[in-house]
Amino acid sequence: MADLPITLADACAALPELWSPRVVARVNDQYVKVARVLGEFPWHAHAGEDELFLVLKGCLTIGRAEADGGPVSLLPGQVFVVRRGVRHNTSATVETWIALIETVTTKHTGEELTPMTRSIEEQLSQ
Amino acid sequence: MADLPITLADACAALPELWSPRVVARVNDQYVKVARVLGEFPWHAHAGEDELFLVLKGCLTIGRAEADGGPVSLLPGQVFVVRRGVRHNTSATVETWIALIETVTTKHTGEELTPMTRSIEEQLSQ
Repeated sequence: MADLPITLADACAALPELWSPRVVARVNDQYVKVARVLGEFPWHAHAGEDELFLVLKGCLTIGRAEADGGPVSLLPGQVFVVRRGVRHNTSATVETWIALIETVTTKHTGEELTPMTRSIEEQLSQ
Repeated sequence: MADLPITLADACAALPELWSPRVVARVNDQYVKVARVLGEFPWHAHAGEDELFLVLKGCLTIGRAEADGGPVSLLPGQVFVVRRGVRHNTSATVETWIALIETVTTKHTGEELTPMTRSIEEQLSQ
Protein backbone atom coordinates (compact mmCIF):
# COMPACT_ATOMS: atom_id res chain seq x y z
CA MET A 1 0.00 0.00 0.00
CA ALA A 2 1.29 3.42 -1.00
CA ASP A 3 2.88 5.68 1.57
CA LEU A 4 0.60 8.56 0.62
CA PRO A 5 -2.55 10.08 2.06
CA ILE A 6 -5.70 8.30 0.93
CA THR A 7 -8.84 10.24 0.15
CA LEU A 8 -11.56 7.85 1.27
CA ALA A 9 -14.25 9.29 -1.01
CA ASP A 10 -11.97 9.05 -4.05
CA ALA A 11 -11.23 5.43 -3.17
CA CYS A 12 -14.98 4.76 -3.05
CA ALA A 13 -15.62 6.59 -6.31
CA ALA A 14 -13.04 4.34 -8.01
CA LEU A 15 -14.78 1.10 -6.97
CA PRO A 16 -16.18 -0.64 -10.02
CA GLU A 17 -18.99 -2.51 -8.26
CA LEU A 18 -21.28 -2.43 -5.25
CA TRP A 19 -20.65 -4.57 -2.12
CA SER A 20 -17.04 -5.30 -3.11
CA PRO A 21 -14.84 -3.94 -0.33
CA ARG A 22 -11.34 -2.85 -1.27
CA VAL A 23 -8.43 -2.62 1.20
CA VAL A 24 -6.96 0.91 1.19
CA ALA A 25 -4.73 0.85 4.27
CA ARG A 26 -3.47 -1.31 7.07
CA VAL A 27 -2.96 -0.19 10.67
CA ASN A 28 -1.44 -2.85 12.90
CA ASP A 29 -3.54 -6.03 12.42
CA GLN A 30 -6.52 -4.19 10.98
CA TYR A 31 -7.44 -3.41 7.40
CA VAL A 32 -9.17 -0.20 6.42
CA LYS A 33 -11.54 -0.99 3.56
CA VAL A 34 -13.93 1.08 1.51
CA ALA A 35 -17.13 -0.04 -0.17
CA ARG A 36 -20.05 1.33 -2.15
CA VAL A 37 -23.33 -0.21 -1.06
CA LEU A 38 -26.97 -0.08 -2.15
CA GLY A 39 -29.70 -2.58 -1.30
CA GLU A 40 -29.21 -5.32 1.25
CA PHE A 41 -26.28 -7.51 2.28
CA PRO A 42 -26.86 -11.02 3.73
CA TRP A 43 -27.08 -11.60 7.48
CA HIS A 44 -23.88 -12.96 9.01
CA ALA A 45 -21.63 -12.78 12.07
CA HIS A 46 -17.89 -12.75 12.77
CA ALA A 47 -17.25 -15.09 15.68
CA GLY A 48 -14.13 -13.50 17.14
CA GLU A 49 -13.89 -10.10 15.48
CA ASP A 50 -15.44 -6.66 15.89
CA GLU A 51 -16.22 -4.66 12.74
CA LEU A 52 -16.23 -0.86 12.58
CA PHE A 53 -18.35 1.06 10.08
CA LEU A 54 -17.82 4.72 9.17
CA VAL A 55 -20.27 6.31 6.75
CA LEU A 56 -18.81 8.73 4.20
CA LYS A 57 -21.89 9.44 2.09
CA GLY A 58 -25.54 8.33 2.17
CA CYS A 59 -27.10 6.36 5.02
CA LEU A 60 -26.28 2.86 6.24
CA THR A 61 -28.63 0.74 8.31
CA ILE A 62 -27.08 -2.04 10.35
CA GLY A 63 -29.67 -4.63 11.30
CA ARG A 64 -29.35 -6.52 14.56
CA ALA A 65 -31.83 -8.66 16.51
CA GLU A 66 -33.72 -6.71 19.16
CA ALA A 67 -31.87 -8.76 21.80
CA ASP A 68 -28.59 -7.42 20.40
CA GLY A 69 -29.75 -3.79 20.54
CA GLY A 70 -31.81 -3.60 17.37
CA PRO A 71 -30.99 -1.76 14.16
CA VAL A 72 -28.98 1.45 13.94
CA SER A 73 -28.70 3.91 11.07
CA LEU A 74 -25.57 5.92 10.36
CA LEU A 75 -25.18 9.20 8.52
CA PRO A 76 -21.90 10.65 7.16
CA GLY A 77 -19.30 11.16 9.87
CA GLN A 78 -20.88 8.56 12.12
CA VAL A 79 -19.15 5.43 13.39
CA PHE A 80 -20.55 2.21 14.82
CA VAL A 81 -18.85 -0.98 15.97
CA VAL A 82 -20.62 -4.32 15.56
CA ARG A 83 -19.34 -6.46 18.38
CA ARG A 84 -17.89 -9.90 17.70
CA GLY A 85 -20.48 -12.66 17.49
CA VAL A 86 -23.38 -10.31 16.82
CA ARG A 87 -25.43 -11.39 13.83
CA HIS A 88 -26.03 -8.39 11.58
CA ASN A 89 -26.78 -7.27 8.08
CA THR A 90 -26.27 -3.98 6.28
CA SER A 91 -28.58 -2.15 3.93
CA ALA A 92 -28.91 1.18 2.21
CA THR A 93 -31.83 2.72 0.34
CA VAL A 94 -29.56 5.24 -1.42
CA GLU A 95 -26.04 4.61 -2.71
CA THR A 96 -23.88 4.80 0.39
CA TRP A 97 -20.12 4.97 0.74
CA ILE A 98 -18.53 3.44 3.79
CA ALA A 99 -15.16 2.73 5.36
CA LEU A 100 -14.72 -0.45 7.40
CA ILE A 101 -12.10 -1.44 9.90
CA GLU A 102 -11.69 -5.09 10.65
CA THR A 103 -9.04 -7.63 11.50
CA VAL A 104 -6.99 -8.69 8.48
CA THR A 105 -8.39 -12.21 8.74
CA THR A 106 -12.08 -11.15 8.85
CA LYS A 107 -14.25 -12.52 6.06
CA HIS A 108 -16.80 -9.90 5.07
CA THR A 109 -19.69 -12.36 4.96
CA GLY A 110 -18.50 -14.23 8.06
CA GLU A 111 -18.76 -17.98 7.59
CA GLU A 112 -21.65 -17.58 5.14
CA LEU A 113 -20.69 -18.16 1.54
CA THR A 114 -22.96 -16.03 -0.62
CA PRO A 115 -22.92 -14.78 -4.21
CA MET A 116 -21.70 -11.49 -2.71
CA THR A 117 -18.70 -13.05 -0.96
CA ARG A 118 -15.36 -11.62 -2.14
CA SER A 119 -12.04 -13.23 -1.25
CA ILE A 120 -9.41 -11.19 0.53
CA GLU A 121 -7.30 -11.44 -2.63
CA GLU A 122 -10.09 -9.69 -4.54
CA GLN A 123 -10.29 -7.06 -1.82
CA LEU A 124 -6.54 -6.42 -2.04
CA SER A 125 -6.39 -6.18 -5.82
CA GLN A 126 -6.36 -2.93 -7.72
CA MET B 1 -18.45 2.49 25.54
CA ALA B 2 -22.04 3.08 24.47
CA ASP B 3 -23.64 0.81 21.92
CA LEU B 4 -24.76 3.76 19.81
CA PRO B 5 -23.49 5.48 16.68
CA ILE B 6 -20.80 8.07 17.40
CA THR B 7 -20.70 11.33 15.49
CA LEU B 8 -16.96 12.01 15.27
CA ALA B 9 -17.33 15.78 14.83
CA ASP B 10 -19.61 16.03 17.87
CA ALA B 11 -17.08 14.06 19.90
CA CYS B 12 -14.38 16.53 18.82
CA ALA B 13 -16.57 19.53 19.57
CA ALA B 14 -17.07 18.23 23.12
CA LEU B 15 -13.33 18.03 23.86
CA PRO B 16 -12.40 20.60 26.49
CA GLU B 17 -8.76 21.05 25.47
CA LEU B 18 -6.37 20.76 22.55
CA TRP B 19 -4.01 17.78 22.11
CA SER B 20 -5.93 15.62 24.58
CA PRO B 21 -7.15 12.56 22.70
CA ARG B 22 -10.31 10.92 23.94
CA VAL B 23 -11.22 7.26 23.26
CA VAL B 24 -14.63 7.05 21.54
CA ALA B 25 -14.71 3.43 20.38
CA ARG B 26 -12.81 0.20 20.40
CA VAL B 27 -12.56 -2.23 17.49
CA ASN B 28 -10.67 -5.42 18.29
CA ASP B 29 -7.35 -4.36 19.88
CA GLN B 30 -7.50 -0.82 18.53
CA TYR B 31 -8.87 2.34 20.05
CA VAL B 32 -10.58 4.99 17.96
CA LYS B 33 -9.73 8.38 19.48
CA VAL B 34 -10.61 11.93 18.58
CA ALA B 35 -8.58 15.06 19.22
CA ARG B 36 -8.64 18.78 18.54
CA VAL B 37 -5.21 20.09 17.57
CA LEU B 38 -3.62 23.45 16.83
CA GLY B 39 0.08 24.29 16.85
CA GLU B 40 2.74 21.61 17.12
CA PHE B 41 3.02 18.31 18.98
CA PRO B 42 6.43 16.94 20.05
CA TRP B 43 8.41 14.53 17.86
CA HIS B 44 8.11 10.90 18.94
CA ALA B 45 7.86 7.34 17.65
CA HIS B 46 5.94 4.20 18.57
CA ALA B 47 8.35 1.29 18.41
CA GLY B 48 5.96 -1.53 17.59
CA GLU B 49 2.74 0.17 16.57
CA ASP B 50 1.30 1.86 13.50
CA GLU B 51 -0.88 4.94 13.99
CA LEU B 52 -3.71 5.96 11.65
CA PHE B 53 -4.80 9.58 11.25
CA LEU B 54 -8.10 10.66 9.69
CA VAL B 55 -8.75 14.38 9.34
CA LEU B 56 -12.32 15.55 10.01
CA LYS B 57 -11.84 19.33 9.79
CA GLY B 58 -8.91 21.65 9.06
CA CYS B 59 -5.50 20.47 7.87
CA LEU B 60 -2.99 18.24 9.64
CA THR B 61 0.69 18.09 8.76
CA ILE B 62 2.58 14.98 9.78
CA GLY B 63 6.30 15.61 9.85
CA ARG B 64 8.72 12.82 9.03
CA ALA B 65 12.41 12.84 8.19
CA GLU B 66 13.14 12.97 4.45
CA ALA B 67 14.54 9.44 4.73
CA ASP B 68 11.14 8.28 6.02
CA GLY B 69 9.25 9.88 3.15
CA GLY B 70 9.09 13.48 4.35
CA PRO B 71 6.07 15.42 5.59
CA VAL B 72 2.51 14.87 4.43
CA SER B 73 -0.51 17.12 4.84
CA LEU B 74 -4.05 15.80 5.19
CA LEU B 75 -7.35 17.49 4.44
CA PRO B 76 -10.80 16.34 5.64
CA GLY B 77 -11.65 12.83 4.50
CA GLN B 78 -7.99 11.89 4.09
CA VAL B 79 -6.26 9.07 5.93
CA PHE B 80 -2.59 8.39 6.54
CA VAL B 81 -0.81 5.64 8.48
CA VAL B 82 2.46 6.39 10.24
CA ARG B 83 4.34 3.12 10.24
CA ARG B 84 5.74 1.69 13.46
CA GLY B 85 9.13 3.03 14.42
CA VAL B 86 8.88 6.14 12.24
CA ARG B 87 9.71 9.29 14.15
CA HIS B 88 7.04 11.91 13.48
CA ASN B 89 5.33 14.98 14.77
CA THR B 90 1.99 16.56 14.04
CA SER B 91 1.11 20.20 13.54
CA ALA B 92 -1.76 22.35 12.40
CA THR B 93 -1.90 26.04 11.54
CA VAL B 94 -5.70 26.15 11.94
CA GLU B 95 -7.76 24.26 14.53
CA THR B 96 -7.98 20.74 13.17
CA TRP B 97 -10.14 17.84 14.26
CA ILE B 98 -8.80 14.34 13.82
CA ALA B 99 -9.63 10.72 14.51
CA LEU B 100 -6.82 8.33 15.38
CA ILE B 101 -6.67 4.57 15.34
CA GLU B 102 -3.98 2.91 17.37
CA THR B 103 -3.36 -0.17 19.46
CA VAL B 104 -4.91 0.05 22.91
CA THR B 105 -1.45 0.05 24.48
CA THR B 106 -0.06 2.90 22.33
CA LYS B 107 1.14 5.95 24.25
CA HIS B 108 0.33 9.07 22.24
CA THR B 109 3.75 10.64 22.80
CA GLY B 110 5.56 7.32 22.41
CA GLU B 111 8.27 6.91 25.04
CA GLU B 112 8.73 10.67 25.31
CA LEU B 113 7.23 12.16 28.45
CA THR B 114 6.20 15.73 27.64
CA PRO B 115 3.93 18.31 29.23
CA MET B 116 1.40 17.26 26.57
CA THR B 117 1.44 13.58 27.55
CA ARG B 118 -1.95 12.27 28.68
CA SER B 119 -2.37 8.89 30.38
CA ILE B 120 -4.70 6.32 28.87
CA GLU B 121 -6.95 6.78 31.91
CA GLU B 122 -7.31 10.46 30.99
CA GLN B 123 -8.06 9.47 27.41
CA LEU B 124 -10.77 7.06 28.55
CA SER B 125 -12.47 9.46 30.96
CA GLN B 126 -15.55 11.53 30.12
